[in-house]
Amino acid sequence: MESFHNAGMSRTSGPSELLVALDRSDAEPLREQIAEQLRAAIRLGTLRSGTRLPASRVLAANLGVSRGVVVEAYDEMHAQGFLAISARSAPVVTAIPGDVGPAPVEPPVRAPLVDFAIETVDTALFDRRAWLRAYAAALDTAPSAALAYGDPRGRPELRSALAEYLGRARGVAAEPARTVICQGSIQGVQIAARLLAAAGARRVAIEDPCSAEVRAATVRAGLEPVPVPADADGLDVGALPTANVNAVLLTPAHQYPGGGTLTPERRRALLAWADTADALIVEDDYDGELRYDRRPVGALQGLARERVIYLGTASRTLVPALRLGWMVVPAALVAGAIAIRWELGGPSPALDQLALARLLRTAAFERHVRRLRTEYGRRREALLAALARTLPDAVPGGAAAGVHLTLTLPAAVSVAAVARAAAAQRVHLQTVELFRAEPADDTRTLLLGFGRVPAPAAPLATSMLERVLSSAAGRARW
Amino acid sequence: MESFHNAGMSRTSGPSELLVALDRSDAEPLREQIAEQLRAAIRLGTLRSGTRLPASRVLAANLGVSRGVVVEAYDEMHAQGFLAISARSAPVVTAIPGDVGPAPVEPPVRAPLVDFAIETVDTALFDRRAWLRAYAAALDTAPSAALAYGDPRGRPELRSALAEYLGRARGVAAEPARTVICQGSIQGVQIAARLLAAAGARRVAIEDPCSAEVRAATVRAGLEPVPVPADADGLDVGALPTANVNAVLLTPAHQYPGGGTLTPERRRALLAWADTADALIVEDDYDGELRYDRRPVGALQGLARERVIYLGTASRTLVPALRLGWMVVPAALVAGAIAIRWELGGPSPALDQLALARLLRTAAFERHVRRLRTEYGRRREALLAALARTLPDAVPGGAAAGVHLTLTLPAAVSVAAVARAAAAQRVHLQTVELFRAEPADDTRTLLLGFGRVPAPAAPLATSMLERVLSSAAGRARW
Repeated sequence: MESFHNAGMSRTSGPSELLVALDRSDAEPLREQIAEQLRAAIRLGTLRSGTRLPASRVLAANLGVSRGVVVEAYDEMHAQGFLAISARSAPVVTAIPGDVGPAPVEPPVRAPLVDFAIETVDTALFDRRAWLRAYAAALDTAPSAALAYGDPRGRPELRSALAEYLGRARGVAAEPARTVICQGSIQGVQIAARLLAAAGARRVAIEDPCSAEVRAATVRAGLEPVPVPADADGLDVGALPTANVNAVLLTPAHQYPGGGTLTPERRRALLAWADTADALIVEDDYDGELRYDRRPVGALQGLARERVIYLGTASRTLVPALRLGWMVVPAALVAGAIAIRWELGGPSPALDQLALARLLRTAAFERHVRRLRTEYGRRREALLAALARTLPDAVPGGAAAGVHLTLTLPAAVSVAAVARAAAAQRVHLQTVELFRAEPADDTRTLLLGFGRVPAPAAPLATSMLERVLSSAAGRARW
Repeated sequence: MESFHNAGMSRTSGPSELLVALDRSDAEPLREQIAEQLRAAIRLGTLRSGTRLPASRVLAANLGVSRGVVVEAYDEMHAQGFLAISARSAPVVTAIPGDVGPAPVEPPVRAPLVDFAIETVDTALFDRRAWLRAYAAALDTAPSAALAYGDPRGRPELRSALAEYLGRARGVAAEPARTVICQGSIQGVQIAARLLAAAGARRVAIEDPCSAEVRAATVRAGLEPVPVPADADGLDVGALPTANVNAVLLTPAHQYPGGGTLTPERRRALLAWADTADALIVEDDYDGELRYDRRPVGALQGLARERVIYLGTASRTLVPALRLGWMVVPAALVAGAIAIRWELGGPSPALDQLALARLLRTAAFERHVRRLRTEYGRRREALLAALARTLPDAVPGGAAAGVHLTLTLPAAVSVAAVARAAAAQRVHLQTVELFRAEPADDTRTLLLGFGRVPAPAAPLATSMLERVLSSAAGRARW
């Protein structure tokens, strides 16, 4: 097959494809047929302004006509204003009177000066070279069969590598057969919600506050989400028995967005309740590896693998654009997970999976995670120090893990006023009300992501935060 | 950030992550705490047989203990049979009595000797070097923002490049704003079906025969699929008015799997009917570029962009494992398409999209498609020639495009007998009954994919086909 790929690979040439149907039995000259069809396509909008057409030599060869025929057609259209022709490049479709031109590119959103948004990580920390090395190696070694359709659960190489890594790093009881690669945690939550519904769940406890996406996913799956408060120690597990639910979806290692870690007592109580209620648990371990203290918190799933659907993602440890997430499901739900994953579009792209498998097997992935912990740890320290200096009466929390912390203000502020003041200062800032089941008008709790606040920028970012709060409170200083 | 990435990148080292929680206030020696937790994890199965543990030096540094403590813990576990320790490598978890060991890898499926399956393309024809070049360039030039979350429709670079290419090559009226990148055609069909339902469709005409996935997608979207026969000229459009449907899903350029091309008369009648019935059309253009004749057939969508949802995919022109597909939707359905695409997991991976955009902009994609047409054209010719020699009474059809053709036998054969005979000969062979709404027990129509039958193999493949048919008919020769 070598010659198949070598032909034309290094030759730079322009477009060649152009839909023209010639009828040689027609009395109309070929030149006119070509020009007419192209003009019609331009008017129709299938050939948009700015589209490059094939060079006359190329089009002539494709259509099986002499080059002169195409040249004449192009010249005619040029004279009529449909094409722009220059000496050394292919003709380009020009805008015609009445043509509204190409649809405008989406206008760029003006980036904030300070970005405290908690969903974000610093994509500049992504090790592109390491990723490319892994991807290239995967592409080099993948058998042809790996490029066809495959197991909806994903590549076995990745499921094996994940099983080992998750076992070591997160205490997850992972078997490749129970692991499903999905398109990021958005999809993982969706699949999990549908599995709950398929398993007979009706009402599912969700944390309050929690991400809107989680709430939406449960509703889409036909479940009724029942908000249960989460505090500094995570989900209030004690409220579950009276909540009349038979499923729960939570973020035990680092409550999103409140930041609390589920205490050992609550973990035990949760598992005991689940046994009694014969309930399923969805554990969203979205940032489990990004811990800054020396108190590692393993996954619940390791202690109850037939009750817990475990979700993880590379969106924070790598980048969201790779769309790499995973789930480890109870044995009884594997068939359902496979069916749902297939319905949502079939398996994730194979090469991306094989590249991640390589990063995991060579331990490059966990080395990268350690470096992230160090860098984000610096940012966290810098932000905490700046907050202590600039907003000493505000109490930071939820800082044990992840890339955001909470800030509890000494007095409530109006959510709307904060939003206005933040927008005016070009500070992207969220309050916890954005994530509550019943958002209040006033709040004491801000959410500060430091994923995009480099350590040297923390003092200035905090000063701007202080200005936002002062402005929102209508005072000179907060 | 240079130092961030350089640290440790070239140093090959083993695993470092291992979940161990030490309680220094506990009377129990640290060595014993470590060994106990690891033994528990091994029994629990979170540390599976074959898992490599961090080297003692690495684990000691991570836990903040002396190396000797870790060495003693490992030695104890080694003596007890939990770990295998060798001089120059990290300890490895060994199987313990009662441990069932790692879950078995899925047993490899025995590949057929001859593969006539019609869903397949020859993934060996994928130009890996060109893809890697495009991917590397995309990775090199992508701004950090492109690595975060993005527009559910996909990267604007790809939507623009596709708009131009589809306009030229397929006569599609594509605007980037109406284009949605999806995870292959499986997902495209799913999104389209849901859009039909959201737009008020109830009964949707589908071709008979058609792919089971299409039927399933309509049902999942809450629609009632109404099979309408497709013949050598594509869908029997004349049957639509009495079918009482307000939507239709078809493959007009090359009927799947029957192979017919919708005639110009039927195309006009279809669009006229859709206007009268105010119906939506889903045009699945799954292999529109792979035509072998000089009668290019443009997309219907170019003539009725507000009635037609256009679907395309790179699964046949590149490889299925890239999961790259696209849809161009009527303006009124854009918001719905965005919402559904988000629900299904958010946008497709950005780098894959940017790589494809690059292939399109540099015209490398269409050069590759031309080469594919040439190579598959050779295989098609070889197969037709071999069929003419070996099975002269059987009539090939549907060969104008794509990577499969139909073969109409002079007399019907039992579908079950064909399946048995094919399996016995290790020939992967499908009959059209596999795709019919009401499969019959006997059939005259075989489907022969030549995506995986190289030209030199055609004579032998056809001989084996003849043996399968003879065996199925219980005769010495077909």
